[in-house]
Amino acid sequence: MRVKVLGFDGDDTLWHSESHFEVTQGEFRELLRRHVPEGDIDSRLAQMEMKNLNVYGYGVKSFTLSMLETAIELTDGRIPARDLEVILNWGKRMLQQPTELLEGVADTLRALSGQYDLMLITKGDLFDQEGKLARSGLAELFWGVDVVSEKNADTYSAVFRRRGIDPPRFVMVGNSLRSDVVPVVALGARAVHIPYHVTWQHEQVPESELPEKGWVRLASISELPAALESL
Amino acid sequence: MRVKVLGFDGDDTLWHSESHFEVTQGEFRELLRRHVPEGDIDSRLAQMEMKNLNVYGYGVKSFTLSMLETAIELTDGRIPARDLEVILNWGKRMLQQPTELLEGVADTLRALSGQYDLMLITKGDLFDQEGKLARSGLAELFWGVDVVSEKNADTYSAVFRRRGIDPPRFVMVGNSLRSDVVPVVALGARAVHIPYHVTWQHEQVPESELPEKGWVRLASISELPAALESL
Repeated sequence: MRVKVLGFDGDDTLWHSESHFEVTQGEFRELLRRHVPEGDIDSRLAQMEMKNLNVYGYGVKSFTLSMLETAIELTDGRIPARDLEVILNWGKRMLQQPTELLEGVADTLRALSGQYDLMLITKGDLFDQEGKLARSGLAELFWGVDVVSEKNADTYSAVFRRRGIDPPRFVMVGNSLRSDVVPVVALGARAVHIPYHVTWQHEQVPESELPEKGWVRLASISELPAALESL
Repeated sequence: MRVKVLGFDGDDTLWHSESHFEVTQGEFRELLRRHVPEGDIDSRLAQMEMKNLNVYGYGVKSFTLSMLETAIELTDGRIPARDLEVILNWGKRMLQQPTELLEGVADTLRALSGQYDLMLITKGDLFDQEGKLARSGLAELFWGVDVVSEKNADTYSAVFRRRGIDPPRFVMVGNSLRSDVVPVVALGARAVHIPYHVTWQHEQVPESELPEKGWVRLASISELPAALESL
């Protein structure tokens, strides 16, 4: 059946995101090391993020709040407020960063928008995601934009229902096997996996849980038009 | 024309919200007063929230981040990290609070759901709003849920388009003149204003900017079924 709607993930599929988190996390490590030279800063932060996920959800504001809490806990409350202010300002910087598109994104999306209805289906913080889209210069290419709090079979089903999308005519494109491939293929739609050079641990899926059919892996979004032709 | 779709605001229309912010702000005032007895804490916090609105957007996480920044600034960085941790925990408490419905909400929505398609159209933090809806016990009554980052004519237009809603057959119900009445009436739909006992200053509208027709004011949501009959 001919593909009609293409769904695109945003973070690390259309624009850089995880690399910005990594830069900030590097600065956080350095700042904290001055107070707790022996502390296992990265794993404490990762644990804090996981612990807070069901209270805060995804996104930069959640990450900022988890950095602050980790800093206070790791230093037993000895960290000066001025250092916490530095962390607050990293969060603001991340939220205001220009949207840095991945290579090939603008040309590919422009080419595909004539043939398919393009959707942005992204998770995380609504305000932040809308801001990134607005700053990306791509907004006008999208027929629809849905920011969801979690990407699973239920949320994709709801998007399909609301938008009148027939799963066999939908292809999802994204960097996360867990969020962009597995739930989509389970619903009878198809997926294209384009790995990003870093993957947040939380998004990884064991090979044994991957569907056998219904998805392909590409090295770059520039290969997408040809891959869609051969689907 | 017969009304088909009813849109409901969430915060302070279906469930208490501003009063939770006020409680926390009272605790914040007390905590800060110990460090800066002369400080004009409330107006400094309000200024900080306005300054940060275009970076953080609405919601509890944004409010928490603004409280932290205000606390650090007002004390010139002298506030101990343990006090900032207390503020972090207020944010978590707010995010996990049970959804406390306003009087008459559950019965009225249940009665109306047989006759109309009910929508929740709320602004703020996606994750937080979805959590409140889930905890409200009302989720099954809604035909659609849209969390938007700002409620203006553009966002209402987008909702109408996406959902196939004809403005003359839509009525919006909410506590904010600025967010629930003015933009809706401007689009040719109608609105019902149900004031809440406290209104965030940011949501207020001068009387002279209110539309003359297309909306009514009710004292309680329990009056809504009768008001809709007479529309």
